[in-house]
Amino acid sequence: MVISVLASGFLFTDHYQLTMAQLYHRFGLHDRLAQFDYSYRSNPDYGTHQAGYAVTAGLGPLLDWMDRTRVEPADTAALGALQSAAGTPMFSRDFLEWMSSAAYSAVSMWAVPEGRIVHPNTPLAVVEAPLAIAQMLETPLLNHLNYASLIATKASRVVEAAHEGPVFEFGMRRAPGWGANDATRAALIGGATASSNLGMSLELGLASQGTHGHSMVQVFMSIAGGELEAFRAYADVYPDNCLLLVDTIDTLGSGVPNAVRVFEELRSAGHEPRGIRLDSGDLAHLAVRSARMLNEAGFPDVRIVLSSQLDELTIWQIRNQIIDEAPRYEVEAASVLARLVYGVGSRMVTSHGDSSFDGVYKVVAVQNASREWRPAIKISDSPAKLAYPGRKGLWRVYDQRGIATADLVTLAEETPDGRPLHLIHPVQAGVGRVLGDEEISDTEPLLIPICAKGRRVVDLGGVAEARSRRVADLGRLDPGVRRLVNPHTYHVSLSPRLVDLKQTMMDALVEIPG
Amino acid sequence: MVISVLASGFLFTDHYQLTMAQLYHRFGLHDRLAQFDYSYRSNPDYGTHQAGYAVTAGLGPLLDWMDRTRVEPADTAALGALQSAAGTPMFSRDFLEWMSSAAYSAVSMWAVPEGRIVHPNTPLAVVEAPLAIAQMLETPLLNHLNYASLIATKASRVVEAAHEGPVFEFGMRRAPGWGANDATRAALIGGATASSNLGMSLELGLASQGTHGHSMVQVFMSIAGGELEAFRAYADVYPDNCLLLVDTIDTLGSGVPNAVRVFEELRSAGHEPRGIRLDSGDLAHLAVRSARMLNEAGFPDVRIVLSSQLDELTIWQIRNQIIDEAPRYEVEAASVLARLVYGVGSRMVTSHGDSSFDGVYKVVAVQNASREWRPAIKISDSPAKLAYPGRKGLWRVYDQRGIATADLVTLAEETPDGRPLHLIHPVQAGVGRVLGDEEISDTEPLLIPICAKGRRVVDLGGVAEARSRRVADLGRLDPGVRRLVNPHTYHVSLSPRLVDLKQTMMDALVEIPG
Repeated sequence: MVISVLASGFLFTDHYQLTMAQLYHRFGLHDRLAQFDYSYRSNPDYGTHQAGYAVTAGLGPLLDWMDRTRVEPADTAALGALQSAAGTPMFSRDFLEWMSSAAYSAVSMWAVPEGRIVHPNTPLAVVEAPLAIAQMLETPLLNHLNYASLIATKASRVVEAAHEGPVFEFGMRRAPGWGANDATRAALIGGATASSNLGMSLELGLASQGTHGHSMVQVFMSIAGGELEAFRAYADVYPDNCLLLVDTIDTLGSGVPNAVRVFEELRSAGHEPRGIRLDSGDLAHLAVRSARMLNEAGFPDVRIVLSSQLDELTIWQIRNQIIDEAPRYEVEAASVLARLVYGVGSRMVTSHGDSSFDGVYKVVAVQNASREWRPAIKISDSPAKLAYPGRKGLWRVYDQRGIATADLVTLAEETPDGRPLHLIHPVQAGVGRVLGDEEISDTEPLLIPICAKGRRVVDLGGVAEARSRRVADLGRLDPGVRRLVNPHTYHVSLSPRLVDLKQTMMDALVEIPG
Repeated sequence: MVISVLASGFLFTDHYQLTMAQLYHRFGLHDRLAQFDYSYRSNPDYGTHQAGYAVTAGLGPLLDWMDRTRVEPADTAALGALQSAAGTPMFSRDFLEWMSSAAYSAVSMWAVPEGRIVHPNTPLAVVEAPLAIAQMLETPLLNHLNYASLIATKASRVVEAAHEGPVFEFGMRRAPGWGANDATRAALIGGATASSNLGMSLELGLASQGTHGHSMVQVFMSIAGGELEAFRAYADVYPDNCLLLVDTIDTLGSGVPNAVRVFEELRSAGHEPRGIRLDSGDLAHLAVRSARMLNEAGFPDVRIVLSSQLDELTIWQIRNQIIDEAPRYEVEAASVLARLVYGVGSRMVTSHGDSSFDGVYKVVAVQNASREWRPAIKISDSPAKLAYPGRKGLWRVYDQRGIATADLVTLAEETPDGRPLHLIHPVQAGVGRVLGDEEISDTEPLLIPICAKGRRVVDLGGVAEARSRRVADLGRLDPGVRRLVNPHTYHVSLSPRLVDLKQTMMDALVEIPG
């Protein structure tokens, strides 16, 4: 294997998780139950544009990793060899003995399934486990969830810009190393139709996409004819998947005419061509001009794949330019838009403009010696940022149109059945909304029990199910929140009982020794 | 294993590499020798600031991957199951038979070793291999080299901003999935002192770094006393590695005083404390104030670790603010700067501001049926962007001070021994420099033979050797090119013989059928 056990197994975590775990072990705190909440603070902001929501992803691979990962003898051997500054062993023999049987089978988790539209400052995953175990899980949990959610969110925006048209993930060559595979999976959850990543697509049981590069045309030009011969060769080998890259020499002067010629030959032989790809130049202009040429040659339906530095804004611009420019060439703009396919690479798999997702994993409660839950608070945080101890509920409230109008954080045992329903602003005192029964069509719990002491209690499916969740959620999201630039802020609210508990806690905080 | 064979083995590549490989195989071109060059087009541009150079990284893991990766039966079985749009097999039986013995042992490579300072539009790696093999290598080569070079470059800038002071890579929690390990290795090559990534550090045989998080203090506050008890516990378990995070409650009002108390207890017990970490607030101000408190308590040497959204610009600002602000608190600025350690996370491992490296891998020559090399040209490129066929040399020319004054691309067989030495501008006709013997102290070849038909012909060492190369190169780089903002453009030049060949080629191009 390329990635070693040491670097991909139980020790795929931060150094300090282990030093804390040993400390907890030394002080007999390691098996106290603790609760940590995963949430994120703000939607990605790409500078000139910003997201109005995020799409959850990464839970499936995280759970698989937790299931499969054991502390291996190589792990404890490597830890045992680490020394302090004074040359003494960093990790004691009795801690390493405990470590050798550490596993994530002790973890209970509630979480929002993959592919859902979510909002900042709501609990998206809740972990309850022995303190040392929950602590060591911090880094791998954040690593899995943050990057995948970042890419699923970016992909969702790209796909929205494409009006849910076909988007191919083409980013592997500039993707972040082995993160390329994580990016592919997340992009598919975010709505990408397919990926060029062959191995990962096969692993996921999905069809990968791709045709040929400039290099193939160049090779034919050098030693086996020219562009036309290259296209003919491609059509010969792939008569039913013939999609030709037309910009190696001159898109309109050579590429499209040669492609049309080969398409005609293909049709004579009983095969329908698939399309052309444009990878340089003014993509909108070339798409209109190519569409006209293809129309006139009798190929009004073949696809036009666009690629080259695409993201949600460039796609938006290209579509608008086509709407403006098509009539000048006597082409119906709608017919051009309908045949477009978008190949999106670097900018999607690196979340161009905002390359990290600010998810955090915070201890919110821990059991004392009597096994009673005690809140864990970071006092330096502002009251508004104070995390609530204990398990919480997260509910989505739908208005009379069936559109999501707020996400409501409650106590775990609460069900938002009372009417009118009170939604309290999380920060501004005295601000809130009151919804009467006639204003609410449904309330839906978002946090689902995932595993109980390591045993999975639900089958959430895979990428296909996550993709469906995103589509369903988008259909129930306000268009203002979906806006690509300067989106409307979605309401996240607290229940009155949660606010009351917070006040009680804040009052009691004064008693806690500083 | 977490990452499957399908997704990490030979099929860790783009779909179209395989469709092209099959086409070459069908037309008997697959075993023609071909040459591909790897280069990048421009230094990373972070928006408000931009790099004046890049640092090479990723070659070691790429070569290891090429050595270990074989086409497995699972790979060919998965390919064999893929179907065209018409339901016929996408890959033929005879191609899959050929594929089953495909391997990168057929590759010869010349490359610039890891850790070197490099510049745009120069050949950084040259691959010579049978066409189908060289083609399939495109994606994994770019994936390995682009991301690692991106991160090594960003890390180098962060370390330069820190005046080569200690920088810890803390980015794992927001790093791009499994790319976290690639990021750690690249950051170390770029000059980071150590990483918090435990598994990868162990894998590389290096000491990882880290202490404790806010959660540990919060746990003690909740069920086992308070911050002071948390610090005492940490000192008890790690008396010789005691570095305390002081901002959980109130940095100056609680954290530093409690840390000082524990440091005094440690010293009484015969141990020297290591330092404190500041993770929020005005880091420059808090560093000055903390330094003063530590000085007055008799700990003028313990470290002050800063973390929280650091990158090269924030470090630069923090250092300048300390220089301005320290005298007001009667602290010597230099002594504060000398004790700083920088914990740099998300912004380093995602190359904040420019999240992809624009390296490309272009076919430059392929053998015809008579095994004569023929240039492969993308005619639509401007003449300036035209890649040269055949193997090239890359030389660094040092001036009389021993400072690098230009990188010179030559024919492979050229040695830049002639004096005066002519350096031709790669784009502007008629522009060049002429260097007399007295202006040149040395010329150094940068492209090294790496492997010959898969057999490694050189041992380039590992991360430690790469780190040394960066330090040596930086010492011979003009300070203007090293500038963090608006750096001076480094000279990349061509030899007269290369320019002559280019002209001959351009003239001949007219003959090539379009």
